[in-house]
Amino acid sequence: MPPLDDRFHVYDTTLRDGAQQEGLNLSVPDKLAVARHLDELGVGFIEGGWPGANPKDTEFFRRARTELALQKAQLAAFGATRRPGVKAADDPLVAALRESGAPVVTLVAKSHDRHVELALRTTLDENLAMIADTVAHLRAEGHRVFLDAEHFFDGYRSNPAYAVEVVRTAADAGADVIALCDTNGGMLPGELAEVIVGVDERTKARLGIHCHDDSACAVANTLAAVDVGVSHVQGTANGYGERCGNANLFSVVANLQLKKGRTVLPDGGLGEMSRIAHAIAEVTNITPNSHQPYVGMSAFAHKAGLHASAVKVDPMLYQHIEPALVGNDMRMLVSDMAGRASVELKGKELGYDLSGDRETLSRVVERVKELESRGYTLEAADASFELLLRDELAGERRRHFEVESWRVIVERRPDGSLLSEATVKLYAKGERMVATGEGNGPVNALDRAVRLGLERIYPELASLELVDYKVRILEGSHGTGAVTRVLIESGDGEAEWGTVGVDENIIAASWDALADAVTYGLLRGGHDLD
Amino acid sequence: MPPLDDRFHVYDTTLRDGAQQEGLNLSVPDKLAVARHLDELGVGFIEGGWPGANPKDTEFFRRARTELALQKAQLAAFGATRRPGVKAADDPLVAALRESGAPVVTLVAKSHDRHVELALRTTLDENLAMIADTVAHLRAEGHRVFLDAEHFFDGYRSNPAYAVEVVRTAADAGADVIALCDTNGGMLPGELAEVIVGVDERTKARLGIHCHDDSACAVANTLAAVDVGVSHVQGTANGYGERCGNANLFSVVANLQLKKGRTVLPDGGLGEMSRIAHAIAEVTNITPNSHQPYVGMSAFAHKAGLHASAVKVDPMLYQHIEPALVGNDMRMLVSDMAGRASVELKGKELGYDLSGDRETLSRVVERVKELESRGYTLEAADASFELLLRDELAGERRRHFEVESWRVIVERRPDGSLLSEATVKLYAKGERMVATGEGNGPVNALDRAVRLGLERIYPELASLELVDYKVRILEGSHGTGAVTRVLIESGDGEAEWGTVGVDENIIAASWDALADAVTYGLLRGGHDLD
Repeated sequence: MPPLDDRFHVYDTTLRDGAQQEGLNLSVPDKLAVARHLDELGVGFIEGGWPGANPKDTEFFRRARTELALQKAQLAAFGATRRPGVKAADDPLVAALRESGAPVVTLVAKSHDRHVELALRTTLDENLAMIADTVAHLRAEGHRVFLDAEHFFDGYRSNPAYAVEVVRTAADAGADVIALCDTNGGMLPGELAEVIVGVDERTKARLGIHCHDDSACAVANTLAAVDVGVSHVQGTANGYGERCGNANLFSVVANLQLKKGRTVLPDGGLGEMSRIAHAIAEVTNITPNSHQPYVGMSAFAHKAGLHASAVKVDPMLYQHIEPALVGNDMRMLVSDMAGRASVELKGKELGYDLSGDRETLSRVVERVKELESRGYTLEAADASFELLLRDELAGERRRHFEVESWRVIVERRPDGSLLSEATVKLYAKGERMVATGEGNGPVNALDRAVRLGLERIYPELASLELVDYKVRILEGSHGTGAVTRVLIESGDGEAEWGTVGVDENIIAASWDALADAVTYGLLRGGHDLD
Repeated sequence: MPPLDDRFHVYDTTLRDGAQQEGLNLSVPDKLAVARHLDELGVGFIEGGWPGANPKDTEFFRRARTELALQKAQLAAFGATRRPGVKAADDPLVAALRESGAPVVTLVAKSHDRHVELALRTTLDENLAMIADTVAHLRAEGHRVFLDAEHFFDGYRSNPAYAVEVVRTAADAGADVIALCDTNGGMLPGELAEVIVGVDERTKARLGIHCHDDSACAVANTLAAVDVGVSHVQGTANGYGERCGNANLFSVVANLQLKKGRTVLPDGGLGEMSRIAHAIAEVTNITPNSHQPYVGMSAFAHKAGLHASAVKVDPMLYQHIEPALVGNDMRMLVSDMAGRASVELKGKELGYDLSGDRETLSRVVERVKELESRGYTLEAADASFELLLRDELAGERRRHFEVESWRVIVERRPDGSLLSEATVKLYAKGERMVATGEGNGPVNALDRAVRLGLERIYPELASLELVDYKVRILEGSHGTGAVTRVLIESGDGEAEWGTVGVDENIIAASWDALADAVTYGLLRGGHDLD
């Protein structure tokens, strides 16, 4: 492992504090996968969890030793100081930290006097002794020790002298960094920076910062802390975390590198950030926030007709950074609000030169508006948009096949077994085809039936694959009744494309998206529609 | 209308700048509905759109005159300064502003020298003349005029003297407020405050602030501006807006009132904020961000077992504000990470005293963990959790009815018409029932069939209603293959309850959630399971 620049720490706590997020459940293989992604990004430390406190985290550290060959990051084990009244060496949870195999141990300690009394149920002095003993013990055992001072800012408000004493005690006992935690997330940047300056004046400790987003200021709070000298920043991938989430490490790091001129990631890390953010979201199974700063799908997307025409002149007048710096792209959105300029740019992106064809442009804009008013979204379905564009350029709707009818049956039999069966009746190249497919669900059965029916004529459909399937119920608050929107992502091993279907009936909406997906796959396979 | 306190403005731009968000499409009735919600919250100004620039916004202002009886807010019409080389009085877009009926006009003007040259294609002097003329003309016509200085902070970096000259020109011509816009959203709080102080020293203008969240600092930037004297803050409901969104007005207002001690909403407004945030999300059809500060469903939700036990001692040790202040609630989450303490608290919330029953608690925790590992989420399905709890308390699974089999057929016929038909075979009270229902989709048909089958025995099922239906595909990155999770919200006119089903097959998952929903509805109707 190359020696790390230790002067500034990027410390990730996705696997521990981030995992507290509602709806987020990580298995041990998930945690290993996330750790590999974070290592690739180049964070300095990855907090893996709390060994001893739950079996999953113990297992994670066990497997990490053999399966996780980190290139850049060091693993940190999280845990509490020894319990009141026992020796650190005798506390089984401290033993679990010792035995975790992680080179770094991050201890969490109370720094708020009322938490010591009410939650820990011990004296203020015993809490200080617990900190000193545990830090010293782990140091003697060869660990590097960081300390999370929990509820620090609220504690400082309640009893500043005690909160500072906690920092001093930990540092004197040998903790390398004391991370001040805004555990309840209520701080604002100005007030937070003032407290840090106060602590800095009264101790010699190296300080870190750990923020939550309950006041919508987690990233700004973290930057404010760095501005006053903090050199260890904690955060989580995509801002995962309990309640409103933790400081989003991606936003923090991008701001530090691109706005504050500090190099905090190894070379090349920042440019991989968008890809890694999405890869981690795949593992966590949390739908990526498309509006996430820097890495979101929409972070550099332009919709307004007003902007779209000017963006053609000089893109940098309309974006705060060059998107490629964080591995993201500028996107033009086709939508209700789009004028001809956006559609023209979008067409160009897809390889169609519409610059001279005002009439087609206007027709496409009209069709897009009409479809979106019915619940379609073409922004996420480039392939459906391209088919629409081709229809308008050709002046008619052209497809490789026409549908006579289809039928789907899903049945739970008395023995509890499930059957999903679909029959499609199609015409293609003058022939009528009837095919039946079975699947693990209705859409899977429909997909198989349509490909089975067409495979004789178009054998390459065998390589077509349904990659992702998304369903959204659009509520009936527009007086039109609820409709279901289905987005399908398909692939042929080389590329992926998105299609959309909308209907009251989820199966019919799925069929429409599926039919577009197959049509687009055939176009990609070289089957023109002329 | 009571006279507004004009010393501090809360200015909402949801209907104009917020509507630029990808995926957000508002009809005229939608815009009227959002305006009513914002008025109820108590914002000072509601920017309704750009009359004349698009027919929808023109229509909005026309209908607002008769249909929108605002109690607290004033309506603002947004538009550009006159075009180069024409008189303000002769510009048709300026005329549209005059004729909008809105008491306030907010003009957008370029303040970045390169934007003037490249996007506006005129001279720096003509741009100043356009500002002065248009402001003076609208003032003479009796309007109050605000000015949005677009791309102000980037412009200040490019040519500070010119950017300041724009502010001075507008103020001299009679604009009441010059809102400095971080249009590209790239600023950080310290740098932004410095610029504002610089402008403040060189003009006598009243300054406002308009931020975007591209650096994840929109709220902090807005607060930093207020800290240096800005008295007009712009933002959008739920932070809607292009790319990464605008400053979230709800977070800004809550921070100002609860953290900065400034009263910026009329009495009672803040306590309605969570309800209004969700009501607006219903209109916009954007899934509410459950992690949104202050108003999100998870903003005061506690998951960790560690916290849950201490929360029992003193909730205020674990939250930055009292949730009721913003109309939100503390919630205990039942989840994978929950220990017995969380389940006990959750049971109490539902009316079950489990405090003495450690064995049942442990069994429930085990069941929850097992279900969540298979993709269930009980956090959003209180009714399914309560049924699980009852099963464990009873020591067996008890239901009002048992299923023999069911079958769903969805068919598109050759004439294009759609059929959805479901048949269920059930046992209840010793009887066997077979019923067939039709619907506008497979789940609707199943719902009708099961209620039709049971209605003879349980007539009150007629009042049961499926209120919401959500589908999530949990991707197969866990090595288990993709499963579908269905959440159903049901109601009986008095209360609503959530149930969950998980299966590879979307119809089977829907059935499971539906069966729980009906069971819970019967329990509510007084049909015990003993």
